[in-house]
Formats: sequence, C-alpha cells, structure tokens
Amino acid sequence: MGPTEAIAEFAARTKAEDIPSEVLTRAKQHVVDTLGVALASSRGSISAIVREVARGSTEGEASLWCGAGKSTAADAAWVNGTLAHALDFDDGGVALTPMHPSAPVLPAVLALAEARNLSGMDAICAYIVGVEVECKLATLISLEHYHRGWHSTAIIGTLGGAVGSAWLLRLSPEKICHALGIASSMAGGLQANFGSMTKPLHAGQAARNGVLAALLAEKSFTANPSSLEAEKGMIEVFGFGDSVTGPRMREVLGRPFHFLSPGVSLKRFPTCTSTHLCLEAVLALRSSNRLVRDRIEKVECAIHQLDFRVLLRPDGIRTAEQARFSLEYAVAVAIRDGEISLRHFDEAMIQSAELQGLMRKVHVFVPPELQDIESRGRRFGLVTIHLSDGSVISHRATQIRGQPPLFLAEEEVDKKFFDCADPVLGRAKAEELLETLRRIETVSGVREIVSVLRKGRGGGPVGPRRS
Amino acid sequence: MGPTEAIAEFAARTKAEDIPSEVLTRAKQHVVDTLGVALASSRGSISAIVREVARGSTEGEASLWCGAGKSTAADAAWVNGTLAHALDFDDGGVALTPMHPSAPVLPAVLALAEARNLSGMDAICAYIVGVEVECKLATLISLEHYHRGWHSTAIIGTLGGAVGSAWLLRLSPEKICHALGIASSMAGGLQANFGSMTKPLHAGQAARNGVLAALLAEKSFTANPSSLEAEKGMIEVFGFGDSVTGPRMREVLGRPFHFLSPGVSLKRFPTCTSTHLCLEAVLALRSSNRLVRDRIEKVECAIHQLDFRVLLRPDGIRTAEQARFSLEYAVAVAIRDGEISLRHFDEAMIQSAELQGLMRKVHVFVPPELQDIESRGRRFGLVTIHLSDGSVISHRATQIRGQPPLFLAEEEVDKKFFDCADPVLGRAKAEELLETLRRIETVSGVREIVSVLRKGRGGGPVGPRRS
Repeated sequence: MGPTEAIAEFAARTKAEDIPSEVLTRAKQHVVDTLGVALASSRGSISAIVREVARGSTEGEASLWCGAGKSTAADAAWVNGTLAHALDFDDGGVALTPMHPSAPVLPAVLALAEARNLSGMDAICAYIVGVEVECKLATLISLEHYHRGWHSTAIIGTLGGAVGSAWLLRLSPEKICHALGIASSMAGGLQANFGSMTKPLHAGQAARNGVLAALLAEKSFTANPSSLEAEKGMIEVFGFGDSVTGPRMREVLGRPFHFLSPGVSLKRFPTCTSTHLCLEAVLALRSSNRLVRDRIEKVECAIHQLDFRVLLRPDGIRTAEQARFSLEYAVAVAIRDGEISLRHFDEAMIQSAELQGLMRKVHVFVPPELQDIESRGRRFGLVTIHLSDGSVISHRATQIRGQPPLFLAEEEVDKKFFDCADPVLGRAKAEELLETLRRIETVSGVREIVSVLRKGRGGGPVGPRRS
Repeated sequence: MGPTEAIAEFAARTKAEDIPSEVLTRAKQHVVDTLGVALASSRGSISAIVREVARGSTEGEASLWCGAGKSTAADAAWVNGTLAHALDFDDGGVALTPMHPSAPVLPAVLALAEARNLSGMDAICAYIVGVEVECKLATLISLEHYHRGWHSTAIIGTLGGAVGSAWLLRLSPEKICHALGIASSMAGGLQANFGSMTKPLHAGQAARNGVLAALLAEKSFTANPSSLEAEKGMIEVFGFGDSVTGPRMREVLGRPFHFLSPGVSLKRFPTCTSTHLCLEAVLALRSSNRLVRDRIEKVECAIHQLDFRVLLRPDGIRTAEQARFSLEYAVAVAIRDGEISLRHFDEAMIQSAELQGLMRKVHVFVPPELQDIESRGRRFGLVTIHLSDGSVISHRATQIRGQPPLFLAEEEVDKKFFDCADPVLGRAKAEELLETLRRIETVSGVREIVSVLRKGRGGGPVGPRRS
C-alpha cells in the first residue's frame, strides 16, 4: 500500500467515535482561534478585494465571512481561507517543515458543511482528519520541499483541504485517492510571494481546490490514484523526500493525533513566527527590568539562520504585510508598548518617526551556532540591550508560549478571540459565536454557526468594506 | 528589465492596430477550432461532472458551453477550459516544450469579455497576446521543466490566461506584473495525471486562475512583481532554465508573432500528438497499398523516446481517455478504417474483440537513433507492416499535416468544426456560429457569440447531460 492509499484508508476508516475527547477539546480551541483571526482580517484590503472578486450575493450555498453575502462552497472556501491567513496570526504546525494547518482546512469543511446542511460534529471531525493528514505530512516530508521554494501551507494544505472535504462527503477510499490525485494537480504556491497579499491567498487557493477536488471525485472524476508516489507525482515533483511511504503514513496517522501530541501551536503575536523567540525575550526583559526606551542605545537580536531567511530586511518597511515579517518592527513595538497586537499594524503607526527611529537601533544577526539546519531543533532568540548608562541586559528565550508544550489556557484563547472578533461582530454576537463553537459537536446544523459569521456587526448582510 | 516586466510591457504596449492582419486570420482559425473541439466534448462525462460542480444557473455573468447556464467569469473559464482540452483534439504549440496554447487562454478571455460586455476585437486581441506570451515562453524554457514532471500547458497556461485577461482589462504594466505574480502562485499540474480526466482539468484550472489573477490585480492585490526571476520564483522553482531573461523575452515577443512564424499546430486526429507521425505513415500506406487487415501479420512502429514516454502501454486500454494515449489503438483504427475520428472513442468500440485483436499485432519501439533528446528535431514515425504473403511494406513520416509548415486549409478547419459542432448545435446554429467567428473582429459584443454557445441544440438552456 502506497502513501496515497494509506491516507485514503485512514480518512475513510476514521469515524467520529474514534476521535478522543482530548483531541476534540484541543481542536475546538483551534476552531475558535481560526474564526477569530479571520474575523479580525475581514475589514482589511485583502478581504475587500477577494470578496469583491468572489462576487457574493444574497443567493448561494455557503457564507462569506464577514458580512459579504453567500457564494458557492468553493468560492466561500477561497475567500474565508484567505481571511484566515491574512494577518499571519493563525495557528502553526509543530514540525520541521513550517505549516499553517487550519486556514486551508477549516474554511473548506465549514463551507461544504453549510452547503450540504451537515452537523457541527461532521464539520469538526472532517477538520480534525484534514489537519491530521497535513501535520503528519509536514512531519515526514523533507525540508528540501521548503528549500526548493514551495510554501508548504499551500501545497500540503491543498491535500488537507481535499481530505477534510472528502471525509465530510463520506467518499470511499478509492474516491479519496482520486480526490488526492486531482488535488495534486491543483497544488501551487511560491515563497517568492511572501510579504505580499498573495501569501494569504495561498491558503484560500488550497481551501478552494480542496473543496473542488472532493466534489469532482464524488462524481467519479478520475486522476492518478497513486498521485503521491507515482512517477512525476507529488513526492518526486515537490521534493517530499523518501520518508513519505505507505508504511510510515499508516504508522503515524492518528497514532496519536497530532493535536494531542506533540500538539499544534497557537500564536500570541500577529507576526511571523520567526519573530516570536525574540519577542518573548524582549517581553521578559521588559517585565523584569522596567525598560525605558529613551535609555536604549542599541538592541542586538540573535536568531536562527532559517528565521533570518524568512524575515524582511528593515529598510522600506511601510505596509502591514511587510511589518508582519519585520523583526526590527516587532521588537521596537514590544520595547515601546510591552505587547504587540493588531492595533500595531496601522500604516501610520508603522511609518511613525518614533517607531522607525527605534527600529534603527535594532540589529539582527545569526550567531555561528545557529547557522546550520541541524541546529534548528535547538534554536533560541537572544536579545541584548545596551543602555545609555553603559549597562547591558540580555535574555535568551528558548520557548514560545502558545507552542507545545506551553499550550495557551482556554481563557487566553478566549481573550484573543474577543480581541479579534469584538470590533467586527460586537461583543454580544462574539459571545454567542464563542458559546456555539465551544459546543460545536452538539450543533445540529453548521448553518446555525455561520449565520453569525455572515452577518457582521448590527446584523444584515453588508457589502465589502475597505479598511 | 527582468522577464516579468518584459512580458508586462509587451502586453500593455500591444494595441489592436499592432496586430498584423495575417496574425488575425491565423488566430481566427484557432478560435474556430478551439470552440469546435470544446463543443464536441460537451456531451461527455468530463463535461457533465465539471458543469455539475460549477453549478450553472440562469443567473451569472458568463456562459458555460454548451447548454448549462451561466456562472461567474472564473467558473465559466474553468468549465470551458476543461471542455476545450477534454478530447486532446485542441491545438498545440510548435516548440521543444509541448504545449496546448488555446485551451487555457480563449475560454478565459471570452468569459471575461462576456462579463464586461466587451467586443469581439477586444477578445481576439487579448487571446492573441496571451497565446503569444505562452508560445514564446514554451520556446525559451528548458525541457528540464517538462522532465521534472510539470504539464507545461498547466503552468505556462496559467501565465497565458493571466496575461490575456490582463490585456482585456487594460491593466497597467505594474498591475500586469502583479497579475503574473499572483498567477505564479496558482500554477500547478502534474504529468502523473496524464491519461486521466485531470489532464484536461489542467487547462480549466489555468483558465480560471488566469482570470482570477487579473481580476485581483485590477483591484490592486499585490504579489512579488518579479515573480519569474525572483528568488524562489517561477524560473527557479519550475525549472524554466536560464534562457528566460528580460532581453530574450523583449527580443522574441511579437517579433514576429508566433501565430505567423513558426505558426501553431491544429490537430487532424483526436489523439495524443505523439501518435500522429505513425498515423500519417499508416494512412499513406493505406492509400497507396490497399491494405486489407486480415492479411496483416505484424505492424512495427518506430517512434521517438519522448513520444514513447508520454504514451500508455497497450494492456488495459479500456476508456476513451486511455485510448487517446494509445498508439496501438490509433494504428489499429487507422488500418481498419483509413481514418481516426471522434466516433472511434466509444468505449464499446475500444473494447471490441476486433480492435483489441488488431492492437495486439502492433509493436511499438524506440530505434537507437531516436533515443536521445537532441534527436527530437529530426524525429520520424516509421511504420513497417508484415503481410501474410511474406511481403513487407513500410512508410516513414517526418511531417504531420496541421503542423507548420503544413497548415490546414480553411475548408479543412471548417470541416473539422462541423464534424465537432453539428451533433451538439445542429447544422444551422453551427453555421451561424462559424460565420460569426470568421468576422469576430467586427462583432460589437462577445455576448452575441456566446449566446449561441450557451443554447445547445434546439435552443434554451438545458441541464448537463452524460454521454
């Protein structure tokens, strides 16, 4: 049995009752988090543009978040998948290959569940199965895949979206193999587009294509049923490496679920993960040393080579998309305000003389011990601050809160959700949505959940808004 | 200036009046041919499935061909692009890298022109510009791209669809660069899916994604504006090779248009191009030697290594998709009937004892002089037939009619069109459509053309049909 069939067998075999309750609990945190960050992005320009292009209307089978009408399930997955990744504030897999697991899967299964009038239990199980496949692929595949220039979230995400959608449609193992084959020819997404609006679009494309692959396979559309391992298939063409075999996939899928161990990360800061270790260090220094920014002469940040390569250089950071990938900006904000949150991605603030000046004091480098790939498992962020009185303070962070094993508490997840959702939905609707999501497995129809997502503040469908 | 900007400059600079009338004449043959083969495929299962998934209705901005209502421009491009490639009967580029130029571009620009209520001249110019970019890319890129496992039609086609659509929307050079960047992250399509329904879907995906990339760029969505040459961009990740430079692109685009020289191929046989040289040889033998099939002991077909690799092996050829990629089947049909046409792809006929028996007499091999890539420019098809009386006849074909410089006459293009369109539209509507297409540059609204395509035989929108 090859890896394509192993994935299909796992998806077809896994029933709702096979999902441990701890996995369900963990997964629900991620549903809350993903919908929260998607709502937070729904008033930005990325959202306005994709919603205009998708041409939502009062007709349609699935809702566009937030307040932009309805559309086909595929178009809804496209818009909502893009929103979920637009702030780079969504969750991340714990594996050598970087990966955002929820954004390509949750919008796909919610759109399809709404279109088919399925239950909350159907949707959450489909989501868990899709994320499980993605995370296990991210664990097994060679980092070569990422080094070739592929955005893993886009490539693996298309398979995750397809498997989650196929689970929801109760496809046979044979049809899931074809769905994976169709998805393999739809997968794309280049790292050259990091720092632009196209990066979040990768998640939307993965979600849409996952839905389409499953819908086509449902109607007996054919592909190569061994698309992962076939000659000129995904393993060969995308550089997945030789660990993605049938026996390895069978061994790892659901044993245990990745949500349980090692777990999936939630982000506390709305910036690229490669900034987070240094942010932890700055916040630790700030709370213990009462930093005053006008006493600061110079800030040195030591980070890993792989993080350094993903981040943008400090000159010319002007837009929110760029600022999310700037360590200098993140550190400047954290020093000034003792936190970094959505309000810090206003372009006037990014371009302010104060923060641009503070950014110029920040120097980022890669120390010799963090140069090679092998050291990634031992990476750290070391922040050293030189003060005007000649003293030097420093902190070395090796763990990020929100990344396993430092899971966020439910109250922290809720707080982030309200920070994100309140300005869009208003507090009362945000509370209603959260309460519904916390018992999603008991909700008889997903339409009950998405009706809140469709309305926006003050009820009634509204047109797209630009921020 | 890099190649991304060179393409954008060419597209933005080229006006309708810059297109030579011979190019327009040649291009119109391809419009007729592409619509014909798409209509012919519109009653097959591939068509039925994609149209059901796209959920056409009486609402919508662009028509699904044929008789399945309307949809968004992007969905219409998706359905119609898939139809155009579904029979593998559509046109082909003349370049080292195999490429079907029209299927990813024409459905994209027609859908968008219908949605925006633009003229026939707008549509044909956008089509010519999109095809020009594709064919020049196919000429310049390294065969390495194809060897890595990419279906060039899918990858280059996405760029062609984006550029054609961007031309139609009159985007600025800067926005065309972003459209190319967005398209670069949407491009995908693996050779592992050759011989399945997913191969034609590649053209539909390219057409849809081309439309979306242009629509997003129109509204100022951003990407890497140097997506071809950027680090982790298309040239690097897809293996385009080092010939795709700004100076080379500027030198070749429109100088002359590829439609004029060397020209683009039209297919006479509804099978993979890799079967065509041997089909020419069999037809030549048949017309000169009055072959009688029960006198045939053995048929030997010598072909080039690259053709051999694309074709399927003879065991287990049962479906129409497989038969199109079987040289044994094509030769058996040509020997029996002296022609090979759409009627030969009925599954009962493919599986008939007579043709399966004849297929077993056909032996395909690669002679030493056709083993390496370098010999591709000198390739031939040599068919040697051993007869029961001990005599041997053979013919070596080095050219394919329909491939430049052996262009088809207008009457031949028309005949193929009617063969394809009559059973779907009925003769009267087919004649009306052909007459309109022959003067497309004078048609004030593309809606006038597609209204015929929308209706199907006997008028009125009808639901999808299965063959």
